[in-house]
Amino acid sequence: MIVALAGGVGGARLAVGLADALPPRELAIVVNTGDDFDHLGFRICPDLDTVMYTLAGENNPVLGWGRAGETWHFMNELKRLGGEDWFQLGDRDLAVHVLRREALRCGVLLSRVTHDLAARFGVKHALMPMSETPVRTIVKTKSGELDFQDYFVRLRCKPRVTGFRFAGVRAARVPDALARVMRGRVDAVVICPSNPFVSVAPIVSVPAIKRWLASRTFPVVAVSPIIGGAAVKGPAAKMMRELGVKPTVLEIARHYERNCGNVVDHWVIDKQDAKLAGAIERLGKRVLVTDTMMTSRRKSAALARRVLGFVQERNNV
Amino acid sequence: MIVALAGGVGGARLAVGLADALPPRELAIVVNTGDDFDHLGFRICPDLDTVMYTLAGENNPVLGWGRAGETWHFMNELKRLGGEDWFQLGDRDLAVHVLRREALRCGVLLSRVTHDLAARFGVKHALMPMSETPVRTIVKTKSGELDFQDYFVRLRCKPRVTGFRFAGVRAARVPDALARVMRGRVDAVVICPSNPFVSVAPIVSVPAIKRWLASRTFPVVAVSPIIGGAAVKGPAAKMMRELGVKPTVLEIARHYERNCGNVVDHWVIDKQDAKLAGAIERLGKRVLVTDTMMTSRRKSAALARRVLGFVQERNNV
Repeated sequence: MIVALAGGVGGARLAVGLADALPPRELAIVVNTGDDFDHLGFRICPDLDTVMYTLAGENNPVLGWGRAGETWHFMNELKRLGGEDWFQLGDRDLAVHVLRREALRCGVLLSRVTHDLAARFGVKHALMPMSETPVRTIVKTKSGELDFQDYFVRLRCKPRVTGFRFAGVRAARVPDALARVMRGRVDAVVICPSNPFVSVAPIVSVPAIKRWLASRTFPVVAVSPIIGGAAVKGPAAKMMRELGVKPTVLEIARHYERNCGNVVDHWVIDKQDAKLAGAIERLGKRVLVTDTMMTSRRKSAALARRVLGFVQERNNV
Repeated sequence: MIVALAGGVGGARLAVGLADALPPRELAIVVNTGDDFDHLGFRICPDLDTVMYTLAGENNPVLGWGRAGETWHFMNELKRLGGEDWFQLGDRDLAVHVLRREALRCGVLLSRVTHDLAARFGVKHALMPMSETPVRTIVKTKSGELDFQDYFVRLRCKPRVTGFRFAGVRAARVPDALARVMRGRVDAVVICPSNPFVSVAPIVSVPAIKRWLASRTFPVVAVSPIIGGAAVKGPAAKMMRELGVKPTVLEIARHYERNCGNVVDHWVIDKQDAKLAGAIERLGKRVLVTDTMMTSRRKSAALARRVLGFVQERNNV
């Protein structure tokens, strides 16, 4: 059993590769819910939806979020009528938000809602939220705290970041299905190339997951979200600069070591960052240098197979 | 000041004619909210929306409800994902439901929400719900009570009707704007050609409106929703047959006399029903026989002018 920890776009790209490389019973994808928020009365779970749409092959490759072939009649009308239009909601995407909101309102757990929606999308692999209960990523800035989507979408990541906190994380309750996975045999955990601060940190901060990882008997391998000093997508590099560190995979490796309970054993880094392999190895990690840019589903699957081979190799040593 | 009482399609057709015939300060349109319901987390006000869309010239003339040029991507996706699809919600229509739900959730009164939405649609005339508080039309049938939309849309008016009740009507609170209109000078009330049982009855059952009409010093003129033994649209004729009366304007006149506090003074009936004029006059009413079929906005305005002329004539007698 492989457990993948994933945020949004980067996480979804490796997750779909892992799904193409592994049968359903051998993969569980645990997704960040720290970005979730309530907006216009909907419960929006951006990372869960991005991963679900990507696994279903229905993601929008141009936008990097939302549905393929989406239309925007609702949104355009909302804007015309003076409604809040800073968060884009496609006509088809909205169906997911309505169904989720209604199910949650009726007391259905988020993991069940996620499972049922994913099944409707033909997703065969286990997709689960990191928590049944709300955890909300708060971005600390010089001018105060911001809700994540306020920072990320409305303010387009402009405010200077000073830190993060995950409201509700101490009381976070992992889904029963995830608890079962954690109690069973796990061959490896793969940390997908997602933002370390706002995608991976919330997941590994959930107490049950944190304890499980701290007492692990399996390797944890992380795929770098930074290639050649830049994030493939999103504000990771900008956040690192604002936090006073160079945006490199070496600094991310140090961050996971210092701030996340030394949660990563092995690193998969891009060829462009080959010169940093030695420094990461000196932190006590094994490093695989390879092409990590996932520009197609085929490349995602190829990277997933290399990551799994790398972990397999370690397990046999 | 003319006050129009309106339900859905028929009401909207005469309302838009009255709006074309009268300046904004001389017309208030009071709309049935007994059909309102909560569905998929939205507060849906079918009659308010039909009248608003019609006044704005944005109604769908083919469907008879909803928006012109509507698309159904949300609905098709909801259906594909196994959601409830018996009540059609267009992509643009949804924007209204989202804005209304959010405003109501924030404590904004329905009359204010209605006013603000109508203003966004460019509606100049006063459009107001009959009640700020929920009133819900319940359809009594042989096999029990049904929520109105369950009866009307989901079951397509198939169950045999035995009666109606308006849950919440005793506690109904009229909007302040309507209370002001009722306290001021009113020249006439026009009952639009809407279903007498489920569109007009809820309005005239609101205690404040009932008292105001009972002590009226102005004439009330009703335009028949039945032409030649059939309802122009909707289940009025079917309901009448099930309640054991012939579907004629004469029976509607008797119904208003017996069951609605003799609320109508003058009747406007269609030429096809000219032979019933005498019987209605024998109930003590004056009758205008004219072409009441509103197949275009021009015909709506023409009928509105004839109705107003007829009332004017009465006032001068």
